Amino acid sequence: MAGNSFGHLFKLTSFGESHGEAIGGIIDGCPAGLKLDLDFIQNELNRRRPGQSNISTPRTEDDKIEFLSGILNDETLGTPIGFIIKNKNQQSKDYDKLKDVYRPGHADFVFEKKFGVRDVRGGGRSSARETISRVVAGAIAKLYLKQHNISIQAFVKQIGSISIDGDYTKHNLNESERNSVRCPDAEKAKEMISYIEKLKVEGDSCGGIIQCVILNTPIGLGEPVFDKLHAELGKAMLSINAVKGFDIGSGFESVKLKGSEMNDAFEIKNEKIITKSNHSGGIQGGISNGMPIYFNVAFKPTSSIKKIQDSVNTSGEEIKLSVEGRHDPCVLPRAVPIVESMAAMIIMDYLLLQKVNQNN
Amino acid sequence: MAGNSFGHLFKLTSFGESHGEAIGGIIDGCPAGLKLDLDFIQNELNRRRPGQSNISTPRTEDDKIEFLSGILNDETLGTPIGFIIKNKNQQSKDYDKLKDVYRPGHADFVFEKKFGVRDVRGGGRSSARETISRVVAGAIAKLYLKQHNISIQAFVKQIGSISIDGDYTKHNLNESERNSVRCPDAEKAKEMISYIEKLKVEGDSCGGIIQCVILNTPIGLGEPVFDKLHAELGKAMLSINAVKGFDIGSGFESVKLKGSEMNDAFEIKNEKIITKSNHSGGIQGGISNGMPIYFNVAFKPTSSIKKIQDSVNTSGEEIKLSVEGRHDPCVLPRAVPIVESMAAMIIMDYLLLQKVNQNN
Amino acid sequence: MAGNSFGHLFKLTSFGESHGEAIGGIIDGCPAGLKLDLDFIQNELNRRRPGQSNISTPRTEDDKIEFLSGILNDETLGTPIGFIIKNKNQQSKDYDKLKDVYRPGHADFVFEKKFGVRDVRGGGRSSARETISRVVAGAIAKLYLKQHNISIQAFVKQIGSISIDGDYTKHNLNESERNSVRCPDAEKAKEMISYIEKLKVEGDSCGGIIQCVILNTPIGLGEPVFDKLHAELGKAMLSINAVKGFDIGSGFESVKLKGSEMNDAFEIKNEKIITKSNHSGGIQGGISNGMPIYFNVAFKPTSSIKKIQDSVNTSGEEIKLSVEGRHDPCVLPRAVPIVESMAAMIIMDYLLLQKVNQNN
Amino acid sequence: MAGNSFGHLFKLTSFGESHGEAIGGIIDGCPAGLKLDLDFIQNELNRRRPGQSNISTPRTEDDKIEFLSGILNDETLGTPIGFIIKNKNQQSKDYDKLKDVYRPGHADFVFEKKFGVRDVRGGGRSSARETISRVVAGAIAKLYLKQHNISIQAFVKQIGSISIDGDYTKHNLNESERNSVRCPDAEKAKEMISYIEKLKVEGDSCGGIIQCVILNTPIGLGEPVFDKLHAELGKAMLSINAVKGFDIGSGFESVKLKGSEMNDAFEIKNEKIITKSNHSGGIQGGISNGMPIYFNVAFKPTSSIKKIQDSVNTSGEEIKLSVEGRHDPCVLPRAVPIVESMAAMIIMDYLLLQKVNQNN
Repeated sequence: MAGNSFGHLFKLTSFGESHGEAIGGIIDGCPAGLKLDLDFIQNELNRRRPGQSNISTPRTEDDKIEFLSGILNDETLGTPIGFIIKNKNQQSKDYDKLKDVYRPGHADFVFEKKFGVRDVRGGGRSSARETISRVVAGAIAKLYLKQHNISIQAFVKQIGSISIDGDYTKHNLNESERNSVRCPDAEKAKEMISYIEKLKVEGDSCGGIIQCVILNTPIGLGEPVFDKLHAELGKAMLSINAVKGFDIGSGFESVKLKGSEMNDAFEIKNEKIITKSNHSGGIQGGISNGMPIYFNVAFKPTSSIKKIQDSVNTSGEEIKLSVEGRHDPCVLPRAVPIVESMAAMIIMDYLLLQKVNQNN
Repeated sequence: MAGNSFGHLFKLTSFGESHGEAIGGIIDGCPAGLKLDLDFIQNELNRRRPGQSNISTPRTEDDKIEFLSGILNDETLGTPIGFIIKNKNQQSKDYDKLKDVYRPGHADFVFEKKFGVRDVRGGGRSSARETISRVVAGAIAKLYLKQHNISIQAFVKQIGSISIDGDYTKHNLNESERNSVRCPDAEKAKEMISYIEKLKVEGDSCGGIIQCVILNTPIGLGEPVFDKLHAELGKAMLSINAVKGFDIGSGFESVKLKGSEMNDAFEIKNEKIITKSNHSGGIQGGISNGMPIYFNVAFKPTSSIKKIQDSVNTSGEEIKLSVEGRHDPCVLPRAVPIVESMAAMIIMDYLLLQKVNQNN
Repeated sequence: MAGNSFGHLFKLTSFGESHGEAIGGIIDGCPAGLKLDLDFIQNELNRRRPGQSNISTPRTEDDKIEFLSGILNDETLGTPIGFIIKNKNQQSKDYDKLKDVYRPGHADFVFEKKFGVRDVRGGGRSSARETISRVVAGAIAKLYLKQHNISIQAFVKQIGSISIDGDYTKHNLNESERNSVRCPDAEKAKEMISYIEKLKVEGDSCGGIIQCVILNTPIGLGEPVFDKLHAELGKAMLSINAVKGFDIGSGFESVKLKGSEMNDAFEIKNEKIITKSNHSGGIQGGISNGMPIYFNVAFKPTSSIKKIQDSVNTSGEEIKLSVEGRHDPCVLPRAVPIVESMAAMIIMDYLLLQKVNQNN
Repeated sequence: MAGNSFGHLFKLTSFGESHGEAIGGIIDGCPAGLKLDLDFIQNELNRRRPGQSNISTPRTEDDKIEFLSGILNDETLGTPIGFIIKNKNQQSKDYDKLKDVYRPGHADFVFEKKFGVRDVRGGGRSSARETISRVVAGAIAKLYLKQHNISIQAFVKQIGSISIDGDYTKHNLNESERNSVRCPDAEKAKEMISYIEKLKVEGDSCGGIIQCVILNTPIGLGEPVFDKLHAELGKAMLSINAVKGFDIGSGFESVKLKGSEMNDAFEIKNEKIITKSNHSGGIQGGISNGMPIYFNVAFKPTSSIKKIQDSVNTSGEEIKLSVEGRHDPCVLPRAVPIVESMAAMIIMDYLLLQKVNQNN
């Protein structure tokens, strides 16, 4: 109930503050007999890790996964998978001066009011370091989905006002992992990187949009009426730090279309029923229709900036504040695997749920 | 697990197909001793009811609520509140010709594939008639919230390309209930109505944006990390029929801002800590900060249109299709109380959850 | 959270007070495409119904089931099954004199303290009339299990001090439905009936033990560690009104055995691994082992008795009290289908859960 | 869903196999601001630890708790409490010879059939080593309950056929922690110890009954109808390894009583409403009535015995088997803190649940 679990049948429960001993989690409900490629899992964590490039934070956490249970000979046992990632490079002193203030855009203030107490060593539980656990569970889900030929790929579509042209269908998504901003358009990637570097110098930050594409989802995933597939995807994305918006298919653009333009007409191709267009983004009535699923996730600019800001301290006095420390001027490149992970967990969860919907 | 329940402590489980005997639900977890204004509840249903104006469907369902349990002398007992609304005006014959086809933009196709069987009498469970139960639970939640002086108001912000200027702070929201499109700008409302009437004649439909504002939420609601308050709001809205997008505060617009522009600086006013701006939309780190909560919900155009569309039938043949019947050319005016209801259920649920977060 | 739902994937949420408009429920998670024998369901309700014989209450509720959703042409749709049973024969006047007193052995006192308010029209939500919903869900579960050749049969093993000899293996269980006390030993049944009739005359009541046997459960049902199959069965039985104890297999008797006596040795029979004895009652480590599952459920004597008792009233005064009204001197015969129903719901639920435990 | 979580608001999710790296868990929903006495918690683990006396296994696991999150300066933060206990003394070689056989009375066979794979290094997930996590969560719950003056004490009431006279009211419970069998009757304790030692020599084992008493529970805990307080207690106890039975208050004995004997008459004492007798065991209609709660838990004899038994191996051949290794001839003394822990978790959970039942 307290918000640290995600999923119905494939379920992650996570723990950990940014400057505690370790963060970690328990994955319950992973079917037995799944072969785990541990290098792949560590590699997914590396995609999320700080210090990958000069546009991300210079913190160099190595984020090494340790599995404690649920696995024997690299195969799942059907029992809960416990894992931890030790916190090694916590420079709590960076945060000493922050323990008496509320950083604008951060959760310091609300955590203190909510719980009556707050972990003053950095963001504590509200730090994005928590998302490591999501990437672990997401990596396992990807391995499960691979068996069903389902692929999930996210990429940076927009940084500030710099956007690629059109959606995923217009780009070679393999390109996105070849540049540090994870954008499939190499030219735009350079522009984005320049913009981020400029903001970094200014002590400022920026946001952007990540688009995620899921291919080969079978028809029928999604649990109407409240647990519609895109509703769950939306919740998952909105639960990621700094996310302020989500839309699927034509999304906010569909507002301007007429029904006759928006509706995806059915047709027969290769003896299968598909839709001619895909404005719906692969989900109709909350249930996957077999077409590609794609959606956008809007991230606000990083809250931690060096620029002087107005704020108040815990004694209730107005102050001026500069947030020192090693922060990402733009979180999107590192958020790409997080978006993929949340999507993977959901698709796997809903595949399992669908196993019980028909009497057979 | 099967998707027909919503909420953690204040929980609605709903049932019902559009053309079955009745729809209804069970509200579990409503605290005992809450006085219920039954007229208010019926009135909320009336706001959602078809046939309210010439821009909505001429179907004239009276949608009369019948409470079966959980209430004595208009006061809640703490036991589950069972309720039904009988289906009276089902013209199933309108649907007879549709039983062998898949309507574009509808859930006919995916329901049949998901369950292996489908209620061919109209949309069945995928019909928006299901949302009646949400309005019942939402009305009860509103009565609970009223005690805490929390108000929730939604309105139509945009229809097609016709949008009001600015956000809720620029308008008198009381105006929105005075016109049939539920827009707080009387002039824009007229434009919107004309546009909808024009599309109705054309046998076409349109979408739009509803904005919702929640005032006087206490600081501290929201359960990090997965059940952040705005994540739950997003899921709730995306679970409403025809919704394709959700954003909160500056939302998708925040993408273009710098951190120094986006961050809401803290200040002291009347001895309380507030923020100077409210780009975050009243929620930081997934927890309410006491400022107004506001968010946008994007609706696609109604799927049911008279215009001829390409489709396929259940025998797998390509066909031409016109969806007859009495459909709303634009669902937004009737969706306003649904958006409010989902928001009310969540705020109430999270108020209850917050009662157990501190040791006292 | 509020206690009115049961099950994980096959889930019943129920509502209803004894003297309200109706009682009923929603069954969510029943797989689509299950053929429902509606006569069988009604017949199961009839087995629970008051007024079946001269040893049960003379109240003659007809308890007619009305399905409102989730079923088309007697087949489940995969959508929630809503149902109601109207309360017709409520003689609230019987209870008028009870509204200001707390009946010993009843939940009047605790309900009022728990909720601050109480339905004074009879037992309200604490009445065993609530179990009707369980029998509806249980009957559907039985129909599901029948496809898998799984049978569930309960019977009265003991009334007061009158007990049959040995356990279910020593008796022809078909006999139990042939007498009004539902005991498989016709001679003992007569003794039991005489005893009950005698107590009825005395204005007193008695309890007893119901044993339940489940045959043909596949190997592998049960979710360690907290949701062990017998733990869930225990909870289900203890949630039935008047139940004070539960044990499985040799149960409390196993306390006196040595490990060498208790352990069920494995052997091979017809190329299958079975156990020579079945002290464990078909469940080991919380997981079914393919042997018959059998357990005992202890019911205390009915609380409502005509005999004068000491009690207090709502004004806090000590009083003398006789509970008038038409009550069962012994609830066990009517509780037999309730025990079976709870067992059936669990076995079905765990069959569904087991569908996702292996990667295939 | 997969059975490794327990509780509604105060929730333990556990992981770990007996011979893996570590066992541990996550406690979610512990209110913020609770002072933790870490020595007390370790001491509770010590009460459960093997090697405490000559009647328990000579394995000397030190079972040292390591908290990884959720606590700062010995105070809870309101965030999830992650913890691990490393497995140090695993003599897997003891189990090498067991990997190809199914031990009678153990879960080897059913785990392998359920999951298609099995941790052959000892009992794996089915080992009672898993209960360490329960004792951690239970110890924290006890600290929470202490604030409300609620105490929970369990003790050994019966071993084999050796039973103390009467129930908890007849004994000085403080005595039970003064002997190695945890029985409040010093004389009977000696008899029990002799009996256990004799069986140990014979390579055999025995079971028994633990009784647990909860004092000062407020009136009103318990969530009808399915989550009745004693139903949840029953499930919790039945989920402990080797438990085969549970009854509350007069339990199975109540079967022989008449209603007039069983009903607990109300009276006024010190201006409070109490009951003269306490046959119901402090719970009526599933809700606590303020009287002492007491219940019995029946444990079967330990399955692991040296005596030769018939069994089969994984190749499907019948074999003779002696289970070597360092096993408890009687688990009850070490199970006493486990029983208390499960009870403590439930009472804390239901105290939290009760906070939302009234509108105030």
